[in-house]
Parts: sequence; structure tokens; C-alpha cells
Amino acid sequence: MPKQTSAKKNAFYAQSGGVTAVINASACGVIETARKHRDKIGKVYAGRNGIIGALTEDMIDTSKETAAAIAALRHTPGGAFGSARYKLKGLEANRAEYERLIEVFRAHNIGYFFYNGGGDSADTCYKVSQLSKKLKFPVQAIHVPKTVDNDLPITDTCPGFGSVAKYVAVSTREAALDVESMARTSTKAFVLEVMGRHAGWIAAAGGLAGSGREEAPHIILFPEIPFDKKAFLQRVAETVRDREYCVIVVSEGAAWPDGRFLADAGTTDAFGHKQLGGVAQVVAQMINDELGLKYHYAIADYLQRSARHIASSTDVKQAYAVGKAAVELALAGENSVMPAIIRKSDRPYRWKIETAPLSRVANREKKMPRRYITKDGYGITAACRRYLEPLIAGEDYPPYAGGLPKYVRLKNIPVAKKLKSKFVL
Amino acid sequence: MPKQTSAKKNAFYAQSGGVTAVINASACGVIETARKHRDKIGKVYAGRNGIIGALTEDMIDTSKETAAAIAALRHTPGGAFGSARYKLKGLEANRAEYERLIEVFRAHNIGYFFYNGGGDSADTCYKVSQLSKKLKFPVQAIHVPKTVDNDLPITDTCPGFGSVAKYVAVSTREAALDVESMARTSTKAFVLEVMGRHAGWIAAAGGLAGSGREEAPHIILFPEIPFDKKAFLQRVAETVRDREYCVIVVSEGAAWPDGRFLADAGTTDAFGHKQLGGVAQVVAQMINDELGLKYHYAIADYLQRSARHIASSTDVKQAYAVGKAAVELALAGENSVMPAIIRKSDRPYRWKIETAPLSRVANREKKMPRRYITKDGYGITAACRRYLEPLIAGEDYPPYAGGLPKYVRLKNIPVAKKLKSKFVL
Repeated sequence: MPKQTSAKKNAFYAQSGGVTAVINASACGVIETARKHRDKIGKVYAGRNGIIGALTEDMIDTSKETAAAIAALRHTPGGAFGSARYKLKGLEANRAEYERLIEVFRAHNIGYFFYNGGGDSADTCYKVSQLSKKLKFPVQAIHVPKTVDNDLPITDTCPGFGSVAKYVAVSTREAALDVESMARTSTKAFVLEVMGRHAGWIAAAGGLAGSGREEAPHIILFPEIPFDKKAFLQRVAETVRDREYCVIVVSEGAAWPDGRFLADAGTTDAFGHKQLGGVAQVVAQMINDELGLKYHYAIADYLQRSARHIASSTDVKQAYAVGKAAVELALAGENSVMPAIIRKSDRPYRWKIETAPLSRVANREKKMPRRYITKDGYGITAACRRYLEPLIAGEDYPPYAGGLPKYVRLKNIPVAKKLKSKFVL
Repeated sequence: MPKQTSAKKNAFYAQSGGVTAVINASACGVIETARKHRDKIGKVYAGRNGIIGALTEDMIDTSKETAAAIAALRHTPGGAFGSARYKLKGLEANRAEYERLIEVFRAHNIGYFFYNGGGDSADTCYKVSQLSKKLKFPVQAIHVPKTVDNDLPITDTCPGFGSVAKYVAVSTREAALDVESMARTSTKAFVLEVMGRHAGWIAAAGGLAGSGREEAPHIILFPEIPFDKKAFLQRVAETVRDREYCVIVVSEGAAWPDGRFLADAGTTDAFGHKQLGGVAQVVAQMINDELGLKYHYAIADYLQRSARHIASSTDVKQAYAVGKAAVELALAGENSVMPAIIRKSDRPYRWKIETAPLSRVANREKKMPRRYITKDGYGITAACRRYLEPLIAGEDYPPYAGGLPKYVRLKNIPVAKKLKSKFVL
């Protein structure tokens, strides 16, 4: 194995878990900031498909990309280097994975590990941050927060969430105008299904489309509130009686009192989470069967988390800021931390970046407070609005050509492999 | 019944059928232009819920709206006065409806009838345009074209279509980046369901997201091409083998060789059309069952046709232009016509408004030419791109406040009823 003695270390950056409209803005923040400190950070190598790229020594040399291409990451959705749903086991359970990481890091003189992901990824990042202590390999691991689920602790919000929230709020407002126009002779109930497996943050954002119970959405179905079929149908019937139509935003995680999801596709992902989808149809069919109302439903699915064209400019700024801060924390010698967004005031929204220890981030899920949901369980409170509103504020349109957004595709030139051994996942 | 002798006639305007992101831009064109000709056109009365508003004497006095409110219609989706799916029967089949229309028009001194809709509505407008000949009541009926289905004859395109097309192209491009990022360990096949009951125009627009077979969407399922399950699954498998993922855009009207829709919800709307929905799930499930691939699917539903936030500026301009032209045609003494968009060149896109007789518009459906679909049936040709590209060109963002589009809600003050009789639909 080649011996590395340089004081100047390279950095490894990887995207993990579900991608977002702004995860590349964080990548942009990491890479642009690292490039400003070439005296301390050599090259930024990106893992192809997240941590898998490190394990298989399949890395991308970001130094081969132009400044313009890296800058364009700021307005490009998806994960430019590929992401992955792959969770490292504990050191005891799979020591081979950690030894392999060290082997790759040593071969490529990597001393900084930037991991851009959500809760599961924070856990992986935390494990990597322990390598120096437990396996005597010096690496600084910094977690860059990202998740549309908005469920990381400490940070005011998670980059990626604000843009999904804006998409859902805008789409709900628009679709509601459509449904209202047609209600006399056509659709009476419209159901929009949004993401949010365990927390209703995204569904709550739909509530921003209207200013209260008088306006659409008339009903939000949260994962936090056990589904009461009778009460729900009664509310739908009342709403249609009073307003001629009813708009419902339902979280994919909406569940019966016994915890079963309203829709359960029966399959699981690599993290062992159940794959959900189709709750909109379940709810719409129920309305048709029991109330005889004509319905339509939409399932936003990936559209919501890739909709860079309607990203929140607050979100874009924060996504960039956490990427930048991660590099600055690394340069300051930190390990096992995450830059967190700390809210200083609601109106105007002011925030700053502070440092959160990963031990307090990993495996802790931030639930939506009950006080953010109205007493009847179907709407959002004033406190929730105060929290959400600044997160969707501002537009940050990508450049267009020929009617379509100009998203960058990087060259993604591989780093030459140095190891003879292969690693089988 | 009050006798009306004024030479200055009022106008009736109504929205019909499914609304769009830009139908209100046409309303704006009609009302603003009429306001410029107060010497000839009195007030513009809008039917509440389309033609139903005329039959039930439930009209809105648009003269009570400020110029700013009318101007804001240009950037507000949905139907500001309410639309309806309600088709007049033939004069012989339901003479009472026509006599009622005349009764209402006479009571309110209405001499102009502007009907803003698609194919079925053109038929209604055509029937109304025959009133002067057949029932000796002088009314000029002008059809204002609108339909996301893009299936009206003569006109180059139908206002409403360009914005849906843009939404679908943008969303496909964005979602494809998401799927590509995650394909190694997650979703391999992504299906986006779009509107288009009998014609694949909207599905075709998804093809603009990529530049050819190498890029997403890899497969488009058109209503025009009978679904071949075996060939389709083989294409999906090949695409996933070669590119790791496969993006599919499917029209709600995709059908088996025997004509049955892939998804048939079993219900029908007021026009007797089958209500469709859920084909994405059918296709996705098929991929999972037969190929064992992880899938996701999105159903854009009303989101696609209400997405004013990403409207095509070409579409907005054309929607306004046909509204304006309709009033000008009326002032020129025309009856039984529709302003049609005539393409003069592709690149640069140049177009003008010409006059089409309704007899040549009503009940004629413009199909997508076979030459717009690639030989294999799964993509769009260069000719199709040349046709579609200008229609999605340009962005026309609505104003925003607090992170959300500022859409206008009109006062919609009713016109005082003059008739004692009620009309039961």
C-alpha cells in the first residue's frame, strides 16, 4: 500500500439517501469552499453512488470540472454524483466495511469525509467519525444535513425540505383553483398525496396554500394523527355541502389507529423501510364508495423533491450554506459534527449556522410537534405557519433554454484506482 | 318581459370544460378588449359555471371588477367564473334550453356570446351561433379555443396545451435526474402518468425532456399506439440493463390492442367520457411483477393543467390573443367563428390569428400524426419536436408574496335577475 505523508489531505464527499432539489447546492458549497482553500484541502473526490463509491473505490475527481459546471450545481436537482440507500452496519457487525474505507482513504490521502444526507446517513457519518478513535485512522467526518423529511434534530430545518414544502403549497393552491372551478358539474373531492413517511412536515406545508379552514386544503391527513374513517368522511361531506368541493392533502404515512399505513405496497427498501404509495387512491376510493362523490387524485412522488424549477430561495441558500460551513468546520479541525441551521427570528426570518455534535444528531428523529396540528387533527396552527412560512420564501429560478431548465451534467471523470483488491458489497 | 332596444349590446362570456393554467388569460383578453370598446359593447357578463350560468340566469357582472383584478386574470390558473361540463343537446332534442338561452339573453340585452372551451364546447357554441338563423334571435357566437388536449382542428395549438406541455417536459426532466441518481440501490423504473384521453399530445411533450433515445424519458406510451406488453417489458428491461434506470411517460389514454384502456376507473363524466386514472400504477405493477424491478410512479392529474407557476409564455400570449381576437371578430360582425392560431414558421416561431368557421371546428378531433411518433412507437420524432418546442418556449412567472403565487380571486358580483321563471337543468 502506498504510504501517504502529505500534510495536505484530499476530501471525500458523498450524497446519501433520497436526493432533493437542492442537494447539489450543498455539493456546490462544499466544492467551491474547498477550492478556496487549496493550501489545506487537495482535491474533492465524490463517491459515485454515495458511500458505495468509497467502498468500491469508485470515485469522481471533481477537480476536473470547470468552475462554471460546479456553480451550475447550485441550480441542478437530483444527485450529480449519484446517491445511494446504503447504511453501514456497526463497527462490530461489519468491521470489514470500515477497514475497507480506511484502505481507500489511505490510498487516496483522504482526511476529510463530508457526508450529505438525512437521519440514516448521519448515523453512518457518526460511525465514520469514530474511526480515528477506534481504528486509529485520522479522518474528520462532517455531516451535511439534507432530507425532505425535515426530521433531523437540532437544525431549524433540513435543506431540501423548504423546496418540497414550496412545491406542495404552490401545487395545492393551483389544483384547488382548478377543482373549485369545476365542482358544480365535475370533481367534488381532490386528493393530493405527498411524501413524509413518519412525519407530517410535507403534508403540513400543503396547509400554506390557504389561510385557514375556509380555504383549500380543507383537510390534511397527518401520519401523527390516527386515521378516523368516520370522522374524516363526515368532514368531507360537510365541506362539499358547504363549499361544493373538498381538497385533501394526505401524507404517504397516514395510518390507521393500529399503526398500519393506509397504503402499504408490501415492499421494503434497502434500509428496511416499507415502500409506500397509493394512499391517495385509497382515500379517494373511500370517498367515492361511502359518499358517492366524484374524485380525482394526484401523486406527486419524485416530482415534489426534484422540482428545482420552483425551489425556495431560502432553501437554496441554506443548502449552500451548510456545504460551505462543513468545509470550514473541517478546516477548523472539527470532527463528528454537523452544521445546523439555527433560527434567530421568525419575521423577518433570520438564521445562522452553528455546530451540532453528531452524537446528538444520529438516530434521533424530529417529530412534528402536536401543537402544530389543529385540535381536530385536520389542519395546521398559527405556530406551524410561523415556522413554515419563511422556509418557502423566495423564488430561485434556474436558467432556461428552449423552454426547459438548463441543468448541468458533470463530466464525472473517475479517480484512477490505486488498490488491487475489490470490495464486494 | 322587458323589451330591449339599445343598439349597444352586452356580452356573455363563459368558460367550459376542464380549466387550464391560462383560460383566465383568455378571459382577460376578452374583458380588457371589450372594455376598450364601450361604445359598442356594454357589459361583459360571465356565466357562473359556464353555460349553466346562462340557463339559470346566474351571471357575474365583470364590470364590477377593477382593471387590476382583470389584469391579474392573466396570471391566475383555474376558471375565475367557474366552468362546467355541460353539453347542449341539439335544437330538436332540447328546444327548451335554446328558448331559455334566448329568454336570458333578451332580458339582459346580450348580443355577443363568447364561449371558451374545447371540442365539445365548440359544438355548443356552434349550436348557439345558429340561433339567429333558426330562432330569429340575433346573437353573435364566437368560440374562444382552449383545451389541454390540443385536439381542436385548424388552430396550430390550443391555449392551455403549451403550459401543460411545459409542465410535463420540465417535470420529466427533473424526476429523471432524481431517478438516475438513485438507481444503483433504489428505484429502477419510474412512471409518470399524464393527461390525454384520446391523443398523445401531452405524453409527447414529455419527450422534450431529453434529446433522444439515449436520454429520459426512455419510453412514451401513446394512446395512438396499441400497447404491446411483451415488447414494452423487453424495452424496459433493455433500458435498465444499459442505463441502470428507465423513465416512462404514459398517457392516461394508453390502451390495449382491443381498445380497452390500460386503466379504466369504470365511471363516466357528464359528457359520457370514461373517467380514467391509475394507468401509472398498472404499468408500474406490471414492471414489478414481470421484471422484479423496484418502481415509483407519479400521477400529475390536475397539477399539470393548473401549474400556472411554470406556464409557457407562448401559451399565455396566445391565450390572451384569442380572447382579444374573439371580441374583435364580434365587433367586425362575425358569427359562428373561432380565432385560430396559424403557424407561419417554426424557428423562429411566428404565428398570427386567422378566422375559422365553427362548422369546420365542431366535432372534429385533431389526432396526433403518426409521423410524430417514432417507428418503434416509444418516442417522438424530429418533426414532433419542431412542432412542440416553440409551444413551451418562454417563462411567464406570476407575482409572488410570502413564497406563494398571488392569484386573484374576483368579487364575482351577480347580475340582478330579471326573470321570474326558473330553469331546471
